[in-house]
Amino acid sequence: LAAARDGDRAALARLISVIERGGQPARDVGRLTYPLGGRAYTVGVTGAPGAGKSTLTSHLIRSRRGLGSEVSVLAIDPSSPFTGGAILGDRVRMQDHALDRGVFIRSMATRGHLGGLALATPEAVRALDAVGFEWVLIETVGVGQVEVEVAGAADTTVVVVNPGWGDAVQASKAGLLEIADVFVINKADRPGVQEARRDLEHMLDMAGLLNADGATGGGERWRPPIVPAVAARGEGIDDVWAAIDAHRRHLETSGELDRRRQRRMIEELRAIVVARLLEQARMAGRGERFDDLRRRVFERDLDPYAAADEILGWLDPAAAQ
Amino acid sequence: LAAARDGDRAALARLISVIERGGQPARDVGRLTYPLGGRAYTVGVTGAPGAGKSTLTSHLIRSRRGLGSEVSVLAIDPSSPFTGGAILGDRVRMQDHALDRGVFIRSMATRGHLGGLALATPEAVRALDAVGFEWVLIETVGVGQVEVEVAGAADTTVVVVNPGWGDAVQASKAGLLEIADVFVINKADRPGVQEARRDLEHMLDMAGLLNADGATGGGERWRPPIVPAVAARGEGIDDVWAAIDAHRRHLETSGELDRRRQRRMIEELRAIVVARLLEQARMAGRGERFDDLRRRVFERDLDPYAAADEILGWLDPAAAQ
Repeated sequence: LAAARDGDRAALARLISVIERGGQPARDVGRLTYPLGGRAYTVGVTGAPGAGKSTLTSHLIRSRRGLGSEVSVLAIDPSSPFTGGAILGDRVRMQDHALDRGVFIRSMATRGHLGGLALATPEAVRALDAVGFEWVLIETVGVGQVEVEVAGAADTTVVVVNPGWGDAVQASKAGLLEIADVFVINKADRPGVQEARRDLEHMLDMAGLLNADGATGGGERWRPPIVPAVAARGEGIDDVWAAIDAHRRHLETSGELDRRRQRRMIEELRAIVVARLLEQARMAGRGERFDDLRRRVFERDLDPYAAADEILGWLDPAAAQ
Repeated sequence: LAAARDGDRAALARLISVIERGGQPARDVGRLTYPLGGRAYTVGVTGAPGAGKSTLTSHLIRSRRGLGSEVSVLAIDPSSPFTGGAILGDRVRMQDHALDRGVFIRSMATRGHLGGLALATPEAVRALDAVGFEWVLIETVGVGQVEVEVAGAADTTVVVVNPGWGDAVQASKAGLLEIADVFVINKADRPGVQEARRDLEHMLDMAGLLNADGATGGGERWRPPIVPAVAARGEGIDDVWAAIDAHRRHLETSGELDRRRQRRMIEELRAIVVARLLEQARMAGRGERFDDLRRRVFERDLDPYAAADEILGWLDPAAAQ
């Protein structure tokens, strides 16, 4: 950690590997990094594969570097548990920023961390925060449940779609509507941009109607702006940053940033406790003993509640520690 | 239970009230009913409010009664915890079938059952099964998470939509695409039936593409048929039953029915264990002690993993019993 704070990028990479593997060493890292952080701002970048997230992210880095900020990127890849810490997109972008000491890019995969990427990612963010990065971009490779959850837990979440009708529907199906703070219609030099915008506006209208009775906890409601961009040509990048900055100002002036972060922290705390309890239940829910129990339930020899009593009796509270 | 099995409908209603309230009496009911069941077939009926689910259900009852089968209906209403066991739709349909001893209609709400309707409903189904109903229809009042979960846990799930573009999108947003075994386009005398069908087919195509790499565990993939109906005039009801019966045959001949039920049972077992463990975590996650812990975490005086250790230390394994 000391070396990483002194600017040793290899040391920082090793620190994140420790977090990925989980267990006691990861908790030691967390204990040391947690008091040092609190200044980084996180931006989630998510969307379907092929939407152009990596290209957009690369240009977002370049743009903010122009203002002198240090930028780090966590690329979340739940589908590749053993990538060895680098996915193709990484390498491409690494080359773009290889000579720039103010940029750090790292992919994250699960390698045994209890609670998976949902819990490992905020720990990695805290490590980057502790090392002094002002910006942590969290980019996902797709829109699976974990990726949406992880990207949606950023301070500002950017959802990248492409022109065309289907994409807006896909975004809706994947739950991206709920987490989006900013929409980017990337590849906006292709036909269908107006249709995509209209579909997104329509879905935001419907979502607004559905949530109209839900209390927002004070303050004006933020309606995600829809920003067209052609990331491959670097077009619209300033507009994307302007939208992110506007959302950040909205969060900060409304007091919502602190509330969001407090909610996330309580949520994480809950998730850690639940992960450990579920790990206990999982350990109990397998093996010969469980197969036998399951058979007795399916043969109606034992009712489900009696079976649950038996399973709870197997749990060892000390193991959850 | 003995009285309910002898045909005493008031006794059956009281039995279900006991299940709704949860706790030890509900578990006693479960212990007694579980060995007696195994013959009932469950059909979930779900869709947005106003889609015409109650009217459709009423006609589905009438139609199957014509074949001599006894039919029961559980109307799932998570939004009304204190309806006293009857919602408006119930009363209307009750009158339709008031003189028919072969029909039993009951709404279900949560009244303190740990695990809520997701756990109380399968228990109520087992009570109806034990009493001898061949068919248990599980109708929801809307498409909230609980309702989708409960209706989707039936042997066959019928999703009711209306003509028009927005409805198919809403169905997709609510996760109905994933659980539908049969689609009914109700109110098919209105314009937009072909558009709704096209949208649903399109979404099923997309969902099929998305899931193309997922193993289905053998057997041919079931593609939900789309059945137009005008429930208010009793039109299309036979077609809906034909689709349900076809799906049932598909499940039975492929062996998928047993696999589905086994999966549901393991899922329920897991849910019971998790509900009790979460109840413990919930009890620990409040009060002054927790507020103090939370404050220390937010002030970076304590890291989240150390805080989780403290919380786990508070848990009393005996309380989960």
